[in-house]
Amino acid sequence: MRPFVTVNCAMTADGKIASVLRKQMRISSPEDLARVKEMRKNSDAILVGIGTVLSDDPHLTVKGLTPEENPLRIVIDGRGRLPEISRVLDDLAKTLIVTCEDCSKTWKGAEVLRIGKNKVDLSGLMKNLYERGIRTLMVEGGGEIISSFFENNLVDRYCVFVGSMIIGGRTAPTPADGDGFTQPLDLKLVDHKVLGNGILLTYEPVNDL
Amino acid sequence: MRPFVTVNCAMTADGKIASVLRKQMRISSPEDLARVKEMRKNSDAILVGIGTVLSDDPHLTVKGLTPEENPLRIVIDGRGRLPEISRVLDDLAKTLIVTCEDCSKTWKGAEVLRIGKNKVDLSGLMKNLYERGIRTLMVEGGGEIISSFFENNLVDRYCVFVGSMIIGGRTAPTPADGDGFTQPLDLKLVDHKVLGNGILLTYEPVNDL
Repeated sequence: MRPFVTVNCAMTADGKIASVLRKQMRISSPEDLARVKEMRKNSDAILVGIGTVLSDDPHLTVKGLTPEENPLRIVIDGRGRLPEISRVLDDLAKTLIVTCEDCSKTWKGAEVLRIGKNKVDLSGLMKNLYERGIRTLMVEGGGEIISSFFENNLVDRYCVFVGSMIIGGRTAPTPADGDGFTQPLDLKLVDHKVLGNGILLTYEPVNDL
Repeated sequence: MRPFVTVNCAMTADGKIASVLRKQMRISSPEDLARVKEMRKNSDAILVGIGTVLSDDPHLTVKGLTPEENPLRIVIDGRGRLPEISRVLDDLAKTLIVTCEDCSKTWKGAEVLRIGKNKVDLSGLMKNLYERGIRTLMVEGGGEIISSFFENNLVDRYCVFVGSMIIGGRTAPTPADGDGFTQPLDLKLVDHKVLGNGILLTYEPVNDL
């Protein structure tokens, strides 16, 4: 058993989640940001990769919620690179940092889970999260982590807001980076909705069991 | 004066126009392919970059049209790399190959236009095409050429079909590659339409003059 996993991200109309400099861009419309806030509120946990924390230093909290009400923040950080001063380590919500088994780094105020030999074992992590009572997980990026979730068939829903802009760049990060799949993973478009100057596309896997 | 330029392409739901191996993928649905055929029929010319010809070797013709009825095929090939055996050199339609001024290569059965010093001068090309009577131009890719068109503010309409699949890959080509822009180029979403298992998004520039 594992949590229901929603991947949520925003990309430009040319398929980028950030510029070539990996600078955070405001891709989402205000209407989409409100939707993301609601989705976070209704999630038991929010997960990001270390790359996203290093570029954007997000809080990953919902304004107005107490530390007990906020979803658990999860950072996938195989080699323990998370800086002590990161915002995800503040006391606005609980934080779980997930490293490989051979990493011994600890962080003040955060729980550490060590799972997987050379890379974090996402399937094992999902099982662990389920056992902790996490039933709904939101994966917010970046492209490397999202690609790993798809590769391991761990995605139940994919929500991508397509912002009406072009940023270009052959090395700019995309919603699913990684090494690429040999065969495309087929999805089904189950919903689309214009939200301000952009459109939210919602997909489900075709062969989800 | 220049032709009305439509950029048309198909990307996966994670923003890729091909796999990391640059292999052509069937991203478009049959319904979208029918739309592209109609759009080609109604265009005076179809333009692609040499990269697209080298990976996909497309015909760039519309089945059922005579050589006189088919749109002019234009290949941007600054350094003259187009192989003699390419399908765009067959006699099913007229072909214009556009190189830099210092390239002296010629191709049997194709006209050559040499414009621009170190790279093809797209704005100059647009003027030249207009003078030839080309009023509607369809730019079909790849990511490098499309990025150059956006960078030079030469795009009047951007049609992107988002196919319901994920392919992943940090080096896979996207609708707009190149070096990336420092500022996003804002567009306006003017239409969206589900076409089979995918959705066609149509944009116009915000500040088109």
